[in-house]
Amino acid sequence: MDAVTLVPNNSLLTATPEEGRQLAVRMSRLIVKATQPDAQIREQLREVYASDAAMLLAVTHTVAIEFATIAAANNYWR
Amino acid sequence: MDAVTLVPNNSLLTATPEEGRQLAVRMSRLIVKATQPDAQIREQLREVYASDAAMLLAVTHTVAIEFATIAAANNYWR
Amino acid sequence: MDAVTLVPNNSLLTATPEEGRQLAVRMSRLIVKATQPDAQIREQLREVYASDAAMLLAVTHTVAIEFATIAAANNYWR
Amino acid sequence: MDAVTLVPNNSLLTATPEEGRQLAVRMSRLIVKATQPDAQIREQLREVYASDAAMLLAVTHTVAIEFATIAAANNYWR
Amino acid sequence: MDAVTLVPNNSLLTATPEEGRQLAVRMSRLIVKATQPDAQIREQLREVYASDAAMLLAVTHTVAIEFATIAAANNYWR
Amino acid sequence: MDAVTLVPNNSLLTATPEEGRQLAVRMSRLIVKATQPDAQIREQLREVYASDAAMLLAVTHTVAIEFATIAAANNYWR
Repeated sequence: MDAVTLVPNNSLLTATPEEGRQLAVRMSRLIVKATQPDAQIREQLREVYASDAAMLLAVTHTVAIEFATIAAANNYWR
Repeated sequence: MDAVTLVPNNSLLTATPEEGRQLAVRMSRLIVKATQPDAQIREQLREVYASDAAMLLAVTHTVAIEFATIAAANNYWR
Repeated sequence: MDAVTLVPNNSLLTATPEEGRQLAVRMSRLIVKATQPDAQIREQLREVYASDAAMLLAVTHTVAIEFATIAAANNYWR
Repeated sequence: MDAVTLVPNNSLLTATPEEGRQLAVRMSRLIVKATQPDAQIREQLREVYASDAAMLLAVTHTVAIEFATIAAANNYWR
Repeated sequence: MDAVTLVPNNSLLTATPEEGRQLAVRMSRLIVKATQPDAQIREQLREVYASDAAMLLAVTHTVAIEFATIAAANNYWR
Repeated sequence: MDAVTLVPNNSLLTATPEEGRQLAVRMSRLIVKATQPDAQIREQLREVYASDAAMLLAVTHTVAIEFATIAAANNYWR
């Protein structure tokens, strides 16, 4: 996993909730990339989970957890 | 996912718990939309998970996590 | 989901832990109701998950997360 | 679920971590009881999940979440 | 579950993160022990989940949650 | 699990979010190592979960939880 950047810009701080949400999505995808470095296999798997209801729900689950951390880091953009 | 708005109104702050709960549901659905941009496929998958007990429970799970973040952002509307 | 009330009394505050726990159960069920508006289908699915060990465990999981939020909202009724 | 007591002693406060842990186990079981009121069915399902590795892991998962709430309520018994 | 000690030393406080992590592993295993008291069955199930990728991931999941609580209890050993 | 170091450097503190994220990945893998000490079996299981969409999502899930703890420990590197 060493060659993959796991946290874009090396920061959890974002200007807005929207950007925080995008970061949550990116960070979870980068873990997939670090765990499965082969881009072609990842592309195939992506088609699998994007067309499977249970897996799409699993995606929302992980993003929710990542976002909780990012939101706390940004004091919820209050 | 770039064209999908992930956080409606770009804010986690809502007037009431009810609105916070609605936001939690919307935010998790928007992640599905960003992951599976094809509206027709999403509609089919929606029928799948809305009729499957285990997947409905998975929906409640994700909403619970999203709501935890939104509730904290709003100081629990105390 | 628009017609379903998602947060009874529009508040996370309860007098006691027992009431907070009941609220956690109700809130998770209301998400099921909002996702599957057909009462008859819900009743069938309810029989499914109430008789399946893995799904019952999934119910406990979601309730635990909802309760964590409600307990924090109420300062743990200390 | 109305007849089932969901929080023993109606309190999250316990004298020790050990008692807090026992409370976490009890609270998750009471959700099972409230969802499946038939004691005989529960006994059968209990044998199922106690003999299934994946379900035992699911039990540990829920207890961990319940315990997190109880531990916070008790300021971690520091 | 009454005869099983659920929290070794009846405390969440540890001298180091390493010891906190060990405690997280032990506490989740003690829930398995309390739920399935038969040591022989536990040993069989252990071989099952230690050789199954999905179950090993489930183990990491529960340990992560237990550790979150223990780390907070110890103010993250800062 | 006694011979496996579970927390590299015995600390949750890291200089940057990137390093914190790497630590989250390592800590979850060390739990796998402690649970399945046989390196050859681990290698086989790794190929399994790295090529399975659902399991990759499970990896992102656990890493998200571990990272939440590490991020809190580091005050989110603010």
